Amino acid sequence: MSRFLSEKYRGLEAYTPGEQPRDMHYIKLNTNESPFPPAPEVTAVLNREQGNLLRLYPDPTAKTLKQKLAKLYGVEPENVFLSNGSDETLNFAFMAYGEKGAVFPDITYGFYQVYGDLYGMDCAQIPLKEDFTLDYRDYCQRGKLVVIANPNAPTGMSIPVKQIRRILETNRDSLVLIDEAYVDFGGETCLPLLRGFDNLLVVRTFSKSRCLAGGRLGYAFGSPEVVEDLEKLRYSTNPYNINRLTLALGEATVDAEGYYQDCCTRIIRSRRWTEEKLKELGFHVLPSQANFLFAASNRIGGEELYRELKRRGILVRHFTKPRICQYNRITIGTQEQMEIFVDTVKEIIWGGTYENL
Amino acid sequence: MSRFLSEKYRGLEAYTPGEQPRDMHYIKLNTNESPFPPAPEVTAVLNREQGNLLRLYPDPTAKTLKQKLAKLYGVEPENVFLSNGSDETLNFAFMAYGEKGAVFPDITYGFYQVYGDLYGMDCAQIPLKEDFTLDYRDYCQRGKLVVIANPNAPTGMSIPVKQIRRILETNRDSLVLIDEAYVDFGGETCLPLLRGFDNLLVVRTFSKSRCLAGGRLGYAFGSPEVVEDLEKLRYSTNPYNINRLTLALGEATVDAEGYYQDCCTRIIRSRRWTEEKLKELGFHVLPSQANFLFAASNRIGGEELYRELKRRGILVRHFTKPRICQYNRITIGTQEQMEIFVDTVKEIIWGGTYENL
Repeated sequence: MSRFLSEKYRGLEAYTPGEQPRDMHYIKLNTNESPFPPAPEVTAVLNREQGNLLRLYPDPTAKTLKQKLAKLYGVEPENVFLSNGSDETLNFAFMAYGEKGAVFPDITYGFYQVYGDLYGMDCAQIPLKEDFTLDYRDYCQRGKLVVIANPNAPTGMSIPVKQIRRILETNRDSLVLIDEAYVDFGGETCLPLLRGFDNLLVVRTFSKSRCLAGGRLGYAFGSPEVVEDLEKLRYSTNPYNINRLTLALGEATVDAEGYYQDCCTRIIRSRRWTEEKLKELGFHVLPSQANFLFAASNRIGGEELYRELKRRGILVRHFTKPRICQYNRITIGTQEQMEIFVDTVKEIIWGGTYENL
Repeated sequence: MSRFLSEKYRGLEAYTPGEQPRDMHYIKLNTNESPFPPAPEVTAVLNREQGNLLRLYPDPTAKTLKQKLAKLYGVEPENVFLSNGSDETLNFAFMAYGEKGAVFPDITYGFYQVYGDLYGMDCAQIPLKEDFTLDYRDYCQRGKLVVIANPNAPTGMSIPVKQIRRILETNRDSLVLIDEAYVDFGGETCLPLLRGFDNLLVVRTFSKSRCLAGGRLGYAFGSPEVVEDLEKLRYSTNPYNINRLTLALGEATVDAEGYYQDCCTRIIRSRRWTEEKLKELGFHVLPSQANFLFAASNRIGGEELYRELKRRGILVRHFTKPRICQYNRITIGTQEQMEIFVDTVKEIIWGGTYENL
């Protein structure tokens, strides 16, 4: 830290992303990436012509991509906001709507608290119930920025849209942000509520179901006025935040919707298979509607399992927070990767070869 | 604007980027882009393999690119900060170091004031002298964040490094940000001062001399502690801010340094030619060390010239600020484009065909 840094950021604790090893030797099940490449039509946009156009700034209004997303989801382009990954939208939303503080679960995406701290906000972390379910009534009549990941991370668990409706109805004068980063893996979107609620912001990403974590593209849906607020902050910080190639990749991705639905189907199938196998091995596995499982064994500690898997070339995500330190979050890879994962877990918890390694 | 937006952003006026027409029918001399494509070795990284890797998050530490830039510029990787375009670095710097306010010239990059407003800072705009030169003594002993674009925009004019040294010496306890976006077109870099001054931050971009405006890549040099501050804000807002392709393009760009030096030489040559021609036409042209000229005619108003050029398919940048509204900022394109530009200006100011269009 330099001696020039503003007082208010001196104690700030930044977010810690999952490990991103620079070699490719791991089976990487730790940051909820897709095991599938983007559609061939998408990678095909990376050609010499696009390369030469890189000398020019991108379209800061992202008009074409907004139109395509609006059409796909049955909204107007004025309802669409785009950002450099969905984290950037979350950042703007905390900045714009956090004046009276925010509420979110104690177990959720760790970045929400970082944004709260960054903007000096009064944040209430509401404990999930013992079984990690979320009681929607805890979020009613709060009058603050309400932030709910649905499905939640790292649990993978969802709440029904009718409960989100209740939260919106009872917080008419504050913004309700529903983070649907993982919705395409079996969750129920609350997007239809946009017609009735000007206090709803639905945040999405191309990083998970759209196989484009490396491209950095987030999108969100809100009322035209909410989108206008976010645009104001974007134009006041970094108007050319989405680069030319990412815009082109995003457009091609929307055009290849069928490919990505197929990817999701395959992920869901492998998730069910993995869940079943882990349960057979005595794991407690939360009911996930995301592209990961959150699971704890009664035979081995969460951190120990994480370490033993890593030694054997498999990365999963372990969190040290006491309430969940017994668990690991396991991204769903290809079926083949999940079979290797399950075999490796067996080897670890059944000892035998484990003792001799 | 929504009814939920925080009070403090309600009056905020965002930055207005230059026109970015989505068709390619203009000779585009309005946003200081390069007329040359990236080096062939750079566009060659856009292949199927890179495309498939897009399913994975980028390296948030950008280790390889930092190493390459450090080597090229003779500093340590710990001195290098990278961002999604240099605007993002400017944003973080105003956020981190603006506690006591900021000072910058009245005529400079318009975004500085937007950042000041965004963070509710006390900003002093110090008037440039009548001839648009900057008196460095105005920036000595300020004890605030000092921000100087060198060369300045939209004037293109520079101050010598020895004056920057004086500013650094007399502001030991506050940060001095030197925005060297245009330094490669004939300016003198203050980078060597980094060894002696922990209060210096030098901001650069790949958008101008590196022909990569569409890729969004900014870089900056500061003390390890200053870089650490900026990293803290980056990790607290958007750790994966630079996408995988841009990192790869950036690395290939540094490797192709010779190509870009050649591009700069060509730009400087065309700038000199254009300056001479405009002077022959009676224009007042400021002495530029950037990839643009700032010029005013005594025969036609600044806004009128802008409009007449646009009608004829040439875009330049006009600012409405009273002190400079007689001027236009003309990006240096290819020699051929500049010849068309000069011919078109002749046509406009000499009337004749102009009357009949």
